[in-house]
Amino acid sequence: MNQYKHVALIGLGLLASSISLAMRRAGMDTRITGTARSCETRKTALEIGLVDAVFDTAAEAVKGADLVILCAPVGAMSAIAAEIAPHLSEGCTISDVGSVKRAVVNAVSPHMPENVHFIPAHPMAGTEKSGPEAGFASLFDNRWLLITPLPDTNHSAVERLMAYWTALGSNVELMKIDHHDLVAAVISHTPHLIAYTMVGVADGMNKVAKTEVVNYSAAGFRDFTRIAASDPTMWRDVFLNNKDATLEVLGRFTEELLALQRAIRLEDGDFLFDYFTRTRDIRRSIVDAGQDTEAPDFGRIKPEK
Amino acid sequence: MNQYKHVALIGLGLLASSISLAMRRAGMDTRITGTARSCETRKTALEIGLVDAVFDTAAEAVKGADLVILCAPVGAMSAIAAEIAPHLSEGCTISDVGSVKRAVVNAVSPHMPENVHFIPAHPMAGTEKSGPEAGFASLFDNRWLLITPLPDTNHSAVERLMAYWTALGSNVELMKIDHHDLVAAVISHTPHLIAYTMVGVADGMNKVAKTEVVNYSAAGFRDFTRIAASDPTMWRDVFLNNKDATLEVLGRFTEELLALQRAIRLEDGDFLFDYFTRTRDIRRSIVDAGQDTEAPDFGRIKPEK
Repeated sequence: MNQYKHVALIGLGLLASSISLAMRRAGMDTRITGTARSCETRKTALEIGLVDAVFDTAAEAVKGADLVILCAPVGAMSAIAAEIAPHLSEGCTISDVGSVKRAVVNAVSPHMPENVHFIPAHPMAGTEKSGPEAGFASLFDNRWLLITPLPDTNHSAVERLMAYWTALGSNVELMKIDHHDLVAAVISHTPHLIAYTMVGVADGMNKVAKTEVVNYSAAGFRDFTRIAASDPTMWRDVFLNNKDATLEVLGRFTEELLALQRAIRLEDGDFLFDYFTRTRDIRRSIVDAGQDTEAPDFGRIKPEK
Repeated sequence: MNQYKHVALIGLGLLASSISLAMRRAGMDTRITGTARSCETRKTALEIGLVDAVFDTAAEAVKGADLVILCAPVGAMSAIAAEIAPHLSEGCTISDVGSVKRAVVNAVSPHMPENVHFIPAHPMAGTEKSGPEAGFASLFDNRWLLITPLPDTNHSAVERLMAYWTALGSNVELMKIDHHDLVAAVISHTPHLIAYTMVGVADGMNKVAKTEVVNYSAAGFRDFTRIAASDPTMWRDVFLNNKDATLEVLGRFTEELLALQRAIRLEDGDFLFDYFTRTRDIRRSIVDAGQDTEAPDFGRIKPEK
């Protein structure tokens, strides 16, 4: 593989820190530079060795890099692209890890000079934690990286990026930009919104005490709170930037939920039973595909108490 | 503690098998008898030592027991109560593990003879697995058991049952019957229905292939599939028997979801950001209360692949 010699990480949160650790694990002797908006984050990233050098600005961080990965919230991408554009090395690749792709293309493309390769990408992996200390080397193992190339993108630049992510542990697939955004709305964005909503409902029920919600949460609710503990800035930007696909999936969701609600009201047990049986299959497929553990309750660690 | 000498388990699934294993772990030398509707389940339960004796009928299984625990789906409780009533020992306690309590009280109470103690209960614990081999001894550790006594219940019989569940690892709390059903609708029943719905939506999107849903599920969706893999019969019965509280919470859920949907449509980023920030706190409280792990992604086991 034609390895990158210098990777610049713009934003140093969960994904950037995991990228750095996975690169080191893969034995890449690549120079890693980085920047983050917060001074504290920059300091931590340097201290724990995520980067060889940290810079106050993205413009400085990208100098000399042959791969730049934008790891900032989607809403920040346009300003970053404008800032780094004059400082990019000829022939370098610009990629990202944003959860939506059409909006990132619209935000970044206009700023990109002719002589660089802009290749949008999205790793289907993460946890509810944020910040430079949240990363771990195995985050991308057997998870999928979706690349959504623009029509005129240099083929060998795409292959080079694919090889890089494969070395980080990912499976890699190419996808059309708008199809990506719909798929992400189904398997990530809408589930997150639903989880946020369910937690908001429980928090706002004044007939049920907060201690009750907390103490009895093991009966199902606590799973939703993990997802609803994800980074608010990132998720605000996701919904603002994948509006149409999210609204489409939400429309379907509401329709289905009302059908189930009606079955409860009409006491249609057969409808409920059939629905609940059908959904079991998809769990089986996910476990079979190696995307989740078969262990009960995710093999969840029981806290000492 | 005035230990029970003979416990009869009616139904031998996840909860009954966990009760048996937790009793053995606690060193109780109690006789355990049991029954289940399926011949295969009865055979397995005896083979793996969950019960000292297994019977074809509930009527036989309860003979001589000083504690009978109904571990069958809520919809089966009335028929079981009618069947066992003539065979109950004088002064014995009848309890259950049903997820709803008003319906269980209505189903069981009318059949109970004068000289027994009927004490409804509900352990706030479980996994997505079912059957006699799904149980484990630590299921109830630091989880809450809610007891919803009837107004005229013998106080020392309640205390005896509380001590028993404490020995199985539970924290125990008393609660009013209807309040239990509302709390359960918030922290368990509605989250399950939402998860079933989300999985149904993803499964039914014909613009997104099933392999896409499966492969990229680590981005949030797979958590929903775990909950939506729970036993369909049990959950059908839950919704049919906790209709009013579930519909009340669903009304709130739809209202909140529409508010978030509107914020997305109107691109009200501040509304979204504030909402997503508020929901982080409750996760913190759940971790602090020892009800979930702080480890990212539940400390989830990564499948080999």
